Amino acid sequence: MYIVTVTVFIKPEQIEAFKTATLDNAANTRKEPHNLRFDISQSEEDPARFLLYEAYKTMEDFAAHQKTAHYFRWRDTIKDMMAQSRQGAKFHSIFFDNTPQ
Amino acid sequence: MYIVTVTVFIKPEQIEAFKTATLDNAANTRKEPHNLRFDISQSEEDPARFLLYEAYKTMEDFAAHQKTAHYFRWRDTIKDMMAQSRQGAKFHSIFFDNTPQ
Repeated sequence: MYIVTVTVFIKPEQIEAFKTATLDNAANTRKEPHNLRFDISQSEEDPARFLLYEAYKTMEDFAAHQKTAHYFRWRDTIKDMMAQSRQGAKFHSIFFDNTPQ
Repeated sequence: MYIVTVTVFIKPEQIEAFKTATLDNAANTRKEPHNLRFDISQSEEDPARFLLYEAYKTMEDFAAHQKTAHYFRWRDTIKDMMAQSRQGAKFHSIFFDNTPQ
């Protein structure tokens, strides 16, 4: 499993618009055959800070995600909503239990 | 959904021992009735950096997790494995799709 995190700081007046754009990206990414997670979370202490947590079967599946229409739409839509550059990090999975409860 | 991330930097010689201790914590936490995720990931660019990504139904469920025997065992076991203090962050969920693929 290949894990990607993205931390985004949004201009306060753009928070709701950012949520709308990112929900579109999340819902469409979840339809990709090799995507396993696309969680969107909002910081408890700073409502302008968001975390995207994405899981793909392989690094190549993430690369394919970055060529989709919904990814480009999200990237372009949120570009001017950010208060600073977004911070991405990539990981290899050590433990990943997808059993629903 | 209540999301917790923990970033941990481990002394290089302790990486395998840290994995073992954290796998024990993850497997036991996944048995908690209101835990939905406990992913362990290792940074692509720095193998001494780990990310724990945890999801609980509510903030109270996370508080209950922090009172379990497996949590205390993990906390005490890894204490001297860390190269610096671990960094935790807490989030409220905006989008959380648990559909398996």
